[in-house]
Amino acid sequence: MKKDKRSSASLLLNIQQKLRNFAEDRNWDQFHSPKNLSMALAAETAELLEIFQWLTEEQSKEIINSEKDLAQVKEEIADVYIYLVRLADKLHIDIEKEVLAKIALNEKKYPVGLSKDNATKYNKR
Amino acid sequence: MKKDKRSSASLLLNIQQKLRNFAEDRNWDQFHSPKNLSMALAAETAELLEIFQWLTEEQSKEIINSEKDLAQVKEEIADVYIYLVRLADKLHIDIEKEVLAKIALNEKKYPVGLSKDNATKYNKR
Amino acid sequence: MKKDKRSSASLLLNIQQKLRNFAEDRNWDQFHSPKNLSMALAAETAELLEIFQWLTEEQSKEIINSEKDLAQVKEEIADVYIYLVRLADKLHIDIEKEVLAKIALNEKKYPVGLSKDNATKYNKR
Amino acid sequence: MKKDKRSSASLLLNIQQKLRNFAEDRNWDQFHSPKNLSMALAAETAELLEIFQWLTEEQSKEIINSEKDLAQVKEEIADVYIYLVRLADKLHIDIEKEVLAKIALNEKKYPVGLSKDNATKYNKR
Repeated sequence: MKKDKRSSASLLLNIQQKLRNFAEDRNWDQFHSPKNLSMALAAETAELLEIFQWLTEEQSKEIINSEKDLAQVKEEIADVYIYLVRLADKLHIDIEKEVLAKIALNEKKYPVGLSKDNATKYNKR
Repeated sequence: MKKDKRSSASLLLNIQQKLRNFAEDRNWDQFHSPKNLSMALAAETAELLEIFQWLTEEQSKEIINSEKDLAQVKEEIADVYIYLVRLADKLHIDIEKEVLAKIALNEKKYPVGLSKDNATKYNKR
Repeated sequence: MKKDKRSSASLLLNIQQKLRNFAEDRNWDQFHSPKNLSMALAAETAELLEIFQWLTEEQSKEIINSEKDLAQVKEEIADVYIYLVRLADKLHIDIEKEVLAKIALNEKKYPVGLSKDNATKYNKR
Repeated sequence: MKKDKRSSASLLLNIQQKLRNFAEDRNWDQFHSPKNLSMALAAETAELLEIFQWLTEEQSKEIINSEKDLAQVKEEIADVYIYLVRLADKLHIDIEKEVLAKIALNEKKYPVGLSKDNATKYNKR
């Protein structure tokens, strides 16, 4: 339904617009080249690495029960998303469209038969 | 409006569900601990670094005119988004809610007056 | 002993000089700003993440027994070292001197009594 | 000269031994799986990204004149080196040997004629 589609996109578009306004109000567009945004994005994902680096996989799952740690994870996930939306916006990329295309591609690259229990990258199989 | 809200969320939720199915079909949940997903997420952002590392900032903006390079950027942005949604899903985090909260927080941390033309991190100002 | 010191530095200095020659021969100094080198460095460490991301910690230790995988790790470690030496060289930083200073600092920040069995970052203890 | 070689290696070996002692004294070997060390390594390189992300390439070069910023760069470079040496040590890798091999390989992959003024990755040329 067309209506659904328009409203479906509206939250991402709404966030995108908020981030544009935020940057414009501070005159930060001068800093937001794709190159710089890729650095900020990578730096934010590293904050997540730092949270999980000394935890076992089991402990990383249990972080869901630690309010304080989970709050930090939430904030870092938000930061990653923010820079990702900024980067996509600067290059006029429709993230959700690309994600749907990538999922379809992955379904071909990783057929269930070959990939069951095996996360080996398709080009190393 | 309630209707908007429900449909607004539906594309992200739809992607989230597709990714769940994808992992379940391949029995990949065993690999998708938050720790491992944080590594995959960081590794994907590095693909973007690799694209931009030897470009000037100006050249990084002009990538929008190079169909081939832009296609690669789109794919990497999709990969980052995919792992981010998986990580958030595993920890029951509502990304868009957290992003809106983070934007509100950033508005306090970076008041326009202090932040104009100045991207210095708030705790180093 | 002065003699030891001089010769001790010589392998790192030798590598540093080789890397300078390599860049000069290809006219690559134009690409080697500290900013760009930090991106290349981060991108190379992500290659290591990619190798280890779906392995358990135990499996990551056992990689020592897999000639092929270990060869890949060796190459990525070399790449990280190469960009690190280039970055330090561009900023006239004596890596080994800084490392010794940092180890001394870490001994103060992580006293044995407080840090035993506990890798919590000193500012979160 | 054999003498030079032995003493040449000694500073790296000396650092490696210091880091072993540091980890053993704190019972931290339990945390230092190759997987975890790759995460810590990547997280440290991201600290360098954070320093350089909003700077122009020119400004990143001029950091050499800012005592305070340079001190921070030195510390982060030391951290990267430290985790790199730990990771190599855990996998019995002789970093300097691998670096010399990689430089020799790069000389073949990037012949001066093809690579002059052109940092394109060899497999994308």
